[in-house]
Amino acid sequence: MKQLTIIKIGGNVIDNSENLHQFLLDFTALPGDKILVHGGGKIATELGESLGIEAKMVEGRRITDIETLRIVTMVYAGLINKNMVAQLQAKGSNAIGLTGADGNIIKAKKRPVKEIDYGFVGDLDENSVSAETLDRLLKAGLVPVLCAITHDGETQLLNTNADTIASSVAVAMSSLYETRLVYCFEKKGVLKDVNDDNSVVREIKANEFESLKADGTVQGGMIPKLHNAFEAIKKGVSAVYIGKADELAELAEETFGTKMLK
Amino acid sequence: MKQLTIIKIGGNVIDNSENLHQFLLDFTALPGDKILVHGGGKIATELGESLGIEAKMVEGRRITDIETLRIVTMVYAGLINKNMVAQLQAKGSNAIGLTGADGNIIKAKKRPVKEIDYGFVGDLDENSVSAETLDRLLKAGLVPVLCAITHDGETQLLNTNADTIASSVAVAMSSLYETRLVYCFEKKGVLKDVNDDNSVVREIKANEFESLKADGTVQGGMIPKLHNAFEAIKKGVSAVYIGKADELAELAEETFGTKMLK
Repeated sequence: MKQLTIIKIGGNVIDNSENLHQFLLDFTALPGDKILVHGGGKIATELGESLGIEAKMVEGRRITDIETLRIVTMVYAGLINKNMVAQLQAKGSNAIGLTGADGNIIKAKKRPVKEIDYGFVGDLDENSVSAETLDRLLKAGLVPVLCAITHDGETQLLNTNADTIASSVAVAMSSLYETRLVYCFEKKGVLKDVNDDNSVVREIKANEFESLKADGTVQGGMIPKLHNAFEAIKKGVSAVYIGKADELAELAEETFGTKMLK
Repeated sequence: MKQLTIIKIGGNVIDNSENLHQFLLDFTALPGDKILVHGGGKIATELGESLGIEAKMVEGRRITDIETLRIVTMVYAGLINKNMVAQLQAKGSNAIGLTGADGNIIKAKKRPVKEIDYGFVGDLDENSVSAETLDRLLKAGLVPVLCAITHDGETQLLNTNADTIASSVAVAMSSLYETRLVYCFEKKGVLKDVNDDNSVVREIKANEFESLKADGTVQGGMIPKLHNAFEAIKKGVSAVYIGKADELAELAEETFGTKMLK
């Protein structure tokens, strides 16, 4: 089976043009088939503020009303995605920027209204991602760059969590490729000592997760991140990495961040 | 040779949601391989106004400064393109929305500064369009939807005239397909009597163009339109049609607008 690497970056990479430049160089240098998934960053919030559209929050959760959806569609699918594609092209990656609507690559379901109406937010299930269409693009020599916008197949665009997109794409592609999933975030990985950036735990096996939670190595926001990683592994992804974007080059030597595996 | 139809629509279709809905239905119903090229419409101007960015004009020509480029990238490549793709998907077209940067489909050159500095505007030449990449997308069963943004291959996105994109794409694709190019505009075609909407000239051959200019049938803004049409035909396009978007269905019966041919 051919290897495929799916990499997710967030606002901390996108908002800093030097970080982004270096990351895109490292991404381009990475051998083999690749898919990039990117989140939003500050630009959407800033554009909203310039237009006098306030971020809507209900019980601490962000709501995607129709105005917010317009803004994220413009910023994620337009400004960020297309500038990233133009930069990747200049660096030698034959990037193609996509939402889930393009080629019907990711069909989501609008989140049902329960206690909170999240607005135009899309949730994914095991049938959401068209691995076949992504495979055709990869075989055409293209590097898909996915932003966090999907659609419902009935004309509605939907705002969808980029972490979820990355993991759903990785799971779907694992039927066709030996798939590894890389989450770039602000830390070097899972740290043995939260105050020591160099205390990265290199490898966590699924059966070690519980004991690492128990001894406090994995805590707080890391618990759901690792839970989702092991869920993806259970569903066919070979390995999930979590680490710092500026160390991506180390993925080749298997010294990038924390590797989670079966 | 397989047939390919390239259709260009402008603001008059995009700005009216009912017109757009009907056009996209007719577009979807059109048999064979297809590429859609769309212009901007009022939304970019409105967004610019909301953000307090004035349209920059020099000697009556619109200038794409960096702020304007950001806006057209957001509106053309994000808002308009992705909503159109989501609508086409719902109607049964496997649309994929693209700028010229995506897959390096259209590489432009920034317009040189002479009397006027047009800013971030891209011009095309005979090597700008990658027919091969568009062909791969068509062969993958996809319907490319191109907006009027290109790139220079060195990270810079560029604003490019949608009519020019449509004609350059048609010329490039004519090496692989029997290509017809359709321009949708506000009139039913070239009119014998400018006051009679039903006096459409059905067919103009290249050698008739001069006499139609001389007798005044073709005048004003129609002269450059037809000139460009015959240039495209000279470079390999089989036929160029010019007519009203809401009559697109008639293309199948060859009764759509004015047909220009060799």
